[in-house]
Amino acid sequence: MTLEEITISRAIISDHMETLLDYMEMDVAVVGGGPSGLVCSALIAEKGYKVGLIEKKLSIGGGMWGGGMMFPRIVVQEEARRLLDRFHINYSEFSSGYYTARSIEAVSKLTAAASDAGVEFFNLTTVEDVMVKGDGVLSGLVINWQPVEATGLHVDPLTLACKITVDATGHDAVISHQVAKKCGKPEIKGEGTMWAENAETAVVSHTKEVFPGLYVCGMAANAVLGGHRMGPVFGGMLLSGEAAALQIVNRL
Amino acid sequence: MTLEEITISRAIISDHMETLLDYMEMDVAVVGGGPSGLVCSALIAEKGYKVGLIEKKLSIGGGMWGGGMMFPRIVVQEEARRLLDRFHINYSEFSSGYYTARSIEAVSKLTAAASDAGVEFFNLTTVEDVMVKGDGVLSGLVINWQPVEATGLHVDPLTLACKITVDATGHDAVISHQVAKKCGKPEIKGEGTMWAENAETAVVSHTKEVFPGLYVCGMAANAVLGGHRMGPVFGGMLLSGEAAALQIVNRL
Amino acid sequence: MTLEEITISRAIISDHMETLLDYMEMDVAVVGGGPSGLVCSALIAEKGYKVGLIEKKLSIGGGMWGGGMMFPRIVVQEEARRLLDRFHINYSEFSSGYYTARSIEAVSKLTAAASDAGVEFFNLTTVEDVMVKGDGVLSGLVINWQPVEATGLHVDPLTLACKITVDATGHDAVISHQVAKKCGKPEIKGEGTMWAENAETAVVSHTKEVFPGLYVCGMAANAVLGGHRMGPVFGGMLLSGEAAALQIVNRL
Amino acid sequence: MTLEEITISRAIISDHMETLLDYMEMDVAVVGGGPSGLVCSALIAEKGYKVGLIEKKLSIGGGMWGGGMMFPRIVVQEEARRLLDRFHINYSEFSSGYYTARSIEAVSKLTAAASDAGVEFFNLTTVEDVMVKGDGVLSGLVINWQPVEATGLHVDPLTLACKITVDATGHDAVISHQVAKKCGKPEIKGEGTMWAENAETAVVSHTKEVFPGLYVCGMAANAVLGGHRMGPVFGGMLLSGEAAALQIVNRL
Amino acid sequence: MTLEEITISRAIISDHMETLLDYMEMDVAVVGGGPSGLVCSALIAEKGYKVGLIEKKLSIGGGMWGGGMMFPRIVVQEEARRLLDRFHINYSEFSSGYYTARSIEAVSKLTAAASDAGVEFFNLTTVEDVMVKGDGVLSGLVINWQPVEATGLHVDPLTLACKITVDATGHDAVISHQVAKKCGKPEIKGEGTMWAENAETAVVSHTKEVFPGLYVCGMAANAVLGGHRMGPVFGGMLLSGEAAALQIVNRL
Amino acid sequence: MTLEEITISRAIISDHMETLLDYMEMDVAVVGGGPSGLVCSALIAEKGYKVGLIEKKLSIGGGMWGGGMMFPRIVVQEEARRLLDRFHINYSEFSSGYYTARSIEAVSKLTAAASDAGVEFFNLTTVEDVMVKGDGVLSGLVINWQPVEATGLHVDPLTLACKITVDATGHDAVISHQVAKKCGKPEIKGEGTMWAENAETAVVSHTKEVFPGLYVCGMAANAVLGGHRMGPVFGGMLLSGEAAALQIVNRL
Amino acid sequence: MTLEEITISRAIISDHMETLLDYMEMDVAVVGGGPSGLVCSALIAEKGYKVGLIEKKLSIGGGMWGGGMMFPRIVVQEEARRLLDRFHINYSEFSSGYYTARSIEAVSKLTAAASDAGVEFFNLTTVEDVMVKGDGVLSGLVINWQPVEATGLHVDPLTLACKITVDATGHDAVISHQVAKKCGKPEIKGEGTMWAENAETAVVSHTKEVFPGLYVCGMAANAVLGGHRMGPVFGGMLLSGEAAALQIVNRL
Amino acid sequence: MTLEEITISRAIISDHMETLLDYMEMDVAVVGGGPSGLVCSALIAEKGYKVGLIEKKLSIGGGMWGGGMMFPRIVVQEEARRLLDRFHINYSEFSSGYYTARSIEAVSKLTAAASDAGVEFFNLTTVEDVMVKGDGVLSGLVINWQPVEATGLHVDPLTLACKITVDATGHDAVISHQVAKKCGKPEIKGEGTMWAENAETAVVSHTKEVFPGLYVCGMAANAVLGGHRMGPVFGGMLLSGEAAALQIVNRL
Repeated sequence: MTLEEITISRAIISDHMETLLDYMEMDVAVVGGGPSGLVCSALIAEKGYKVGLIEKKLSIGGGMWGGGMMFPRIVVQEEARRLLDRFHINYSEFSSGYYTARSIEAVSKLTAAASDAGVEFFNLTTVEDVMVKGDGVLSGLVINWQPVEATGLHVDPLTLACKITVDATGHDAVISHQVAKKCGKPEIKGEGTMWAENAETAVVSHTKEVFPGLYVCGMAANAVLGGHRMGPVFGGMLLSGEAAALQIVNRL
Repeated sequence: MTLEEITISRAIISDHMETLLDYMEMDVAVVGGGPSGLVCSALIAEKGYKVGLIEKKLSIGGGMWGGGMMFPRIVVQEEARRLLDRFHINYSEFSSGYYTARSIEAVSKLTAAASDAGVEFFNLTTVEDVMVKGDGVLSGLVINWQPVEATGLHVDPLTLACKITVDATGHDAVISHQVAKKCGKPEIKGEGTMWAENAETAVVSHTKEVFPGLYVCGMAANAVLGGHRMGPVFGGMLLSGEAAALQIVNRL
Repeated sequence: MTLEEITISRAIISDHMETLLDYMEMDVAVVGGGPSGLVCSALIAEKGYKVGLIEKKLSIGGGMWGGGMMFPRIVVQEEARRLLDRFHINYSEFSSGYYTARSIEAVSKLTAAASDAGVEFFNLTTVEDVMVKGDGVLSGLVINWQPVEATGLHVDPLTLACKITVDATGHDAVISHQVAKKCGKPEIKGEGTMWAENAETAVVSHTKEVFPGLYVCGMAANAVLGGHRMGPVFGGMLLSGEAAALQIVNRL
Repeated sequence: MTLEEITISRAIISDHMETLLDYMEMDVAVVGGGPSGLVCSALIAEKGYKVGLIEKKLSIGGGMWGGGMMFPRIVVQEEARRLLDRFHINYSEFSSGYYTARSIEAVSKLTAAASDAGVEFFNLTTVEDVMVKGDGVLSGLVINWQPVEATGLHVDPLTLACKITVDATGHDAVISHQVAKKCGKPEIKGEGTMWAENAETAVVSHTKEVFPGLYVCGMAANAVLGGHRMGPVFGGMLLSGEAAALQIVNRL
Repeated sequence: MTLEEITISRAIISDHMETLLDYMEMDVAVVGGGPSGLVCSALIAEKGYKVGLIEKKLSIGGGMWGGGMMFPRIVVQEEARRLLDRFHINYSEFSSGYYTARSIEAVSKLTAAASDAGVEFFNLTTVEDVMVKGDGVLSGLVINWQPVEATGLHVDPLTLACKITVDATGHDAVISHQVAKKCGKPEIKGEGTMWAENAETAVVSHTKEVFPGLYVCGMAANAVLGGHRMGPVFGGMLLSGEAAALQIVNRL
Repeated sequence: MTLEEITISRAIISDHMETLLDYMEMDVAVVGGGPSGLVCSALIAEKGYKVGLIEKKLSIGGGMWGGGMMFPRIVVQEEARRLLDRFHINYSEFSSGYYTARSIEAVSKLTAAASDAGVEFFNLTTVEDVMVKGDGVLSGLVINWQPVEATGLHVDPLTLACKITVDATGHDAVISHQVAKKCGKPEIKGEGTMWAENAETAVVSHTKEVFPGLYVCGMAANAVLGGHRMGPVFGGMLLSGEAAALQIVNRL
Repeated sequence: MTLEEITISRAIISDHMETLLDYMEMDVAVVGGGPSGLVCSALIAEKGYKVGLIEKKLSIGGGMWGGGMMFPRIVVQEEARRLLDRFHINYSEFSSGYYTARSIEAVSKLTAAASDAGVEFFNLTTVEDVMVKGDGVLSGLVINWQPVEATGLHVDPLTLACKITVDATGHDAVISHQVAKKCGKPEIKGEGTMWAENAETAVVSHTKEVFPGLYVCGMAANAVLGGHRMGPVFGGMLLSGEAAALQIVNRL
Repeated sequence: MTLEEITISRAIISDHMETLLDYMEMDVAVVGGGPSGLVCSALIAEKGYKVGLIEKKLSIGGGMWGGGMMFPRIVVQEEARRLLDRFHINYSEFSSGYYTARSIEAVSKLTAAASDAGVEFFNLTTVEDVMVKGDGVLSGLVINWQPVEATGLHVDPLTLACKITVDATGHDAVISHQVAKKCGKPEIKGEGTMWAENAETAVVSHTKEVFPGLYVCGMAANAVLGGHRMGPVFGGMLLSGEAAALQIVNRL
């Protein structure tokens, strides 16, 4: 065959545009591509729902790439070991109940699993605002290109519709803050001090619907509901993503 | 179990430090975590060699995350389809001989495969300089943290030893330029105009040892040896990574 | 009717994507949306050719918006008055042979005329490189989003095909420099001192094909072929755009 | 004729300065050159009033240039189709009641129409403050060059007088905020969530006098009076500009 | 001997990593390497306690390097002269009771003394957050690399444990603010106007435990408890560091 | 005593200004406060000569603070161990002939020793240019405040006279480059690749007078005379500083 | 004579340092070198008092250099014409009671007059804080170099004593804000809308002591006491400076 | 009288615009408002010629404001003392033949004198290019607003005509470089090392016509003709300005 540049260009535009048009309406929009958002989106998509994961950065994975202080390792506790197994992430035991894994392996396998489960990724995409109509339910997201926002260009966003939104944006809880600012709730309690034990438990119990149509998971759950901070132990993050998925699948 | 923050911190430091001390001497250092570097490192590590992949960014994957013009799709031509299969990357045929894949799936699966093959990743790490002693062979790299460089801090680098270095740093061919500046060769011919057909063939034939101990692959091969530019078709990149791996394994 | 946000989003994506796919192959690509590029593209499109105008900024019009030193007025001399008439731009006589017009009226009417003539605009788009294959003819452009370039993101470009390219990028003569750097020609002579009389004549005589498939017009013509500089008198710019259009239409 | 650089310079300075001196007193000052400001200013000027449009950027057109997410298309609904016709903007029907137009054509034709109607443009001009004297009526604007503001230079502004001011500065509602900060009113309710249907209706009903001498139109109307957000559908914007013009013409 | 680069690298990594692992638990963490933090840490370490000094900058010494307005001299009053003697810092009498010393000599000798006393330094390290568990005691610090923070990278921190924390971060009283924000206390009264006489006395009397496990010394003491400001007289700073050391040693 | 702010201010100004006026003429100006500059200046001052050390940063110590890759440890080889002893820097043996020391202890003790030897420090001071009169000897330095240079202020420098200048500015060899640019010599050969063994030997043999009145030591010696690079082993640096001091003392 | 660089350096240092030491105590410190500060300081110094003018920029003159919108002209009304005469500033009558002067002439003559009157200038100097001791009187200023502040260096300030301070810092009323923040008063009412007539009268009546030892004049008077804004008419500014001088001279 | 904001605005615009139109043709354009440019322009204007001084900064005075290293004093040697007298600048003798003056007094009196002599100032104005027509004589300057250049706006410049241009732009010799780049001459030799004695003599002898229509004075003379550097002694600068004026007056 002779390779044609223009065919290549058209293949890329055409293939993605069909997806983009299709995903203007989806079942679940997960915002934030860190570990909890990846687990959550993968487990929902596995059930056959149409899930889009929206991430402002170019790469997927959030804060997991850097491990702790640039040492690319993460720790997962006993309770969440089964999720490492599920996603085929290798680990070794450091001391009783503490397992270390390589952060880059973990993030790439979670991403690959979400992709295989059918999640569509929209990277370099920011959520500028939310769509809440007369029924008071969060029913869509107002999105734009991240480089447009970063360069301060005056370019209008587009809107996509989703039945459920998951705020998996970490400490900043971006979607929850936008909803709170425009609609007066949910109350944002803010994250507490470092206390890993307590934070790990709380992040799962705080994983819930905080506004009609809006779920929080991962550190965003603790940031909205006032949990503690946990540091580079990722068991709670994975379990929170799983918990959100279960709740959402039950409801859909 | 009760979760202890300090045990978590020690697990991370201790686990990575053992690796870091160990990898101060390695068989092959691949610089640049784009598609050719990933394929190259994975295939060498599969043969049991000790391979480290050094990447300046926080995330692995290079230019593959963004597809073409932020449309997250890549194109692979017939010749390289077998590599998509090998790395379990899904694709669909756009027109005869042109296959589209999702860029985020592709990058995460290549990274996961390299990790499973035993590659160790050193992200957020820049190569400041090279080690060439009296025998005129590139025998090590002078590395530093990328954030140290980005903030202009005056902090000394460390040195690691490697039998073979692979310059997979793309258009910039960073290692080749450093060697050329300090040692007077190889000649850097510079990349030509866009001509995908020609570039795809050249990138494989240009994959070779260009200085004692230094191989080039991916776009760095075309940049050093004067090939054309190819755009978002990735067959040649994958094949170049494979070709470099074969040459290096034959030699080790 | 009830207004649906998602229909609005889909209308925009769908409408533009059809155009984008269609314009991956065009007759003439005019790079630079200043006055000479606008006149050139409008006059070629009027003849029924498929013309795309590529502009890196968000707005079309180039240096014409600001008049001279932020006083939004331009001057056109007698020789080009007929082009003001043709594009329905109002003017008044300042002194014999010197006509002043409002710069904002001029730029908006030139843009509207190009649009009515069938020109398609691709704004916020940069040309990263050129496509020159074995026949040595400039046959396409390597494009990317300007905000991607401005934020330094590592995202691959796409390629579009065109029979003829017009470099109307002003003083910088961007396309001519890219071709010169990669192919060794044309020679870039550089712009001379301010000498309006001489520059106005030269800009028309310098309007020509400077490399197979590449025409220059407007200030880029003087920058490549060594003409003088002209300042905020726009007669020569308009006439140069017209001259380029005539030459290209004759050839197509 | 021989072209004289100095005559060109004098023509530009002299022509604009007469305008500038003349427009130190005007009937209506429209601040913000987006679609609602353009329609509003054009329709008032058509009636013979002295209208100045003040825009901080170099180009006129505001957020319309970029369409939605850099896809240069806008949507207009049935109710506002007659305004597309009035301004000779071409469109096509996407689905029942939804018309798509090219954003660049739209903005250039609105600007050209305003110019033909007699509007004077003052681009690169910021409004630093407002003039409100003892009668409590907004009777003038304190203006400066935008580049002076952008470079943080300490340069005093000038003041111009106007009978009516229109705040067409979009989401930021700049003039309304300045008046509110200095005079304690109007109350700024802030923009709501995305809800196109509701927003499109509200933007017209919110178009009104919000402080003696100050009207709001376009997104500034919704920002001040608490309407929803609309995205890249422009019917309401055009109708709001028309509504403001009607109210102001009735009063003058 | 033959010098081996890799042995050098391993020596550095290995030596520091043992320290780092060891100091994940320490008796006292002093945050801030200015004069009061240096004196405090030196005097506690002299008693045999395990003390770590955490400093965000590359160099130790804080505001002492620059003297007053870049004239590298400090002044110490009679009351604190004995501390200059203790740390072998040379001085001369300017007028009765006022002694001038060279700021660079002072800072290097305090640092050397702290080092000899057994203090371990962690420079280029920021404290992102604090660890406070169910007992309401400040029992650890959440640390990260300063260049990571400065470049805005999303990299997780690590946690270290300490029985006592000393906030010696100067005017900003960083640790006290973090504790206050997360735990509601201590009240931060803020620093008063310049009044050297009063400030010098207050800085010693304000040196105390302000939250379970948290002591303040140096300007942070005045910033938290509402003392005045003192300028480039350093007697109170040195005495405050000494006072904090005495209180902490008594308690341990 | 009552503490008077104004007396404090006057003490600082008065004490430093006397020094500044005095040091407008000195025997030796050492530029650069890294390890070789510190050793060099200390050893010359010990012999009773008037030595000023000029450093552009706020703190003295150069690249020594950060150890290797932010791990604050340095390595010194057997040959230079006696200099660690001389400056009372503690160390431990890592493997035969390799000694590790804490970088912060090392830098503070070298600085303290230089200060005790009588060296005067001029920190935050840049060298803008050099004074070379008709005899072709470097006889003075043109200095300014570093913050003045950093903020781009147009403020004239002052000039100081010195019999001998030492370029201890590291890789950049700032003074040598300034002299070379203005006077055509010395030739700057540039630093070679990493080769610690060779570099350590060369840095001592390259320590010499390279232009009348100008000596180089430390990495500047290798940068000017074409030696290799050494990394975080500091024996050669200390020995080079010593060698420069010996040569200069012999000559004075 | 033979010109000696070192004598030149010593002359500058020595001459200024004597002044600096002397002015650590002054009668009146005027902060801000705009027109009101210049008139105020000149008129007080004429009476033989020791006056220092502190200005953060390199040049004296404040907002007067740029006239209105970069047209270097100012307007002075009839009431203040006598001050133009007093300072030998040329003017011409534009219309009855309105005099225009060249802004650059005005600022240079005011500065020269202040200098001749004996005012000492301290340019590039910021006021970081104020000195207020137990008697609750503003009795000194805490100063630093502006480039130190601009580069974020951690360098301590010095303190100077003054019997009276004049806040002539314009719209920002810097000193009044610092005093208000630390001492709870004076109340800062903020500047009103543009209303030249009213503002010109108010600026003189608002010129007064607003805190023990602190006077306000020029736009700072209106900013603190709630006057209107005036634009590029300078009569009130000059009269306010005169009024402040009269009040202060009466009191001293 | 009642003060009218609009009259004030019109007075400023009208007064300056007449000047601007008038000075589009002038006898002598002096570029650069430092001491040599001020003396030169003042002495030519005194003879009745039409002189414009073009300065890119907001304030006039160049490098004189800051004295030496921010100590606001300058030194003038015996030979130029008469010029201090002529411009009524006070001074005192430091040592035989060395006179110190206050830099702020000096700059304000030179500016005031130039203004009184009839010089028109155009501040915030950059020279983008030069006008050289067929006769090869520099006959005009291409000017723009400095803030336009600083913000990178695409706004066309204007052109003014002058019989003689004086390059008084200091070390950068901006005009000479522009002419050399476009016309191939004059040769720019570059400034030598610091050597005040030699530089002071050379700056006067180098003051001359270096291209038809272009004179250099002050540091630009030494930068173009290869003289030495002088530092903060200003006698040569003043004498050079005088010498240029004499030569130009003789020719006009």
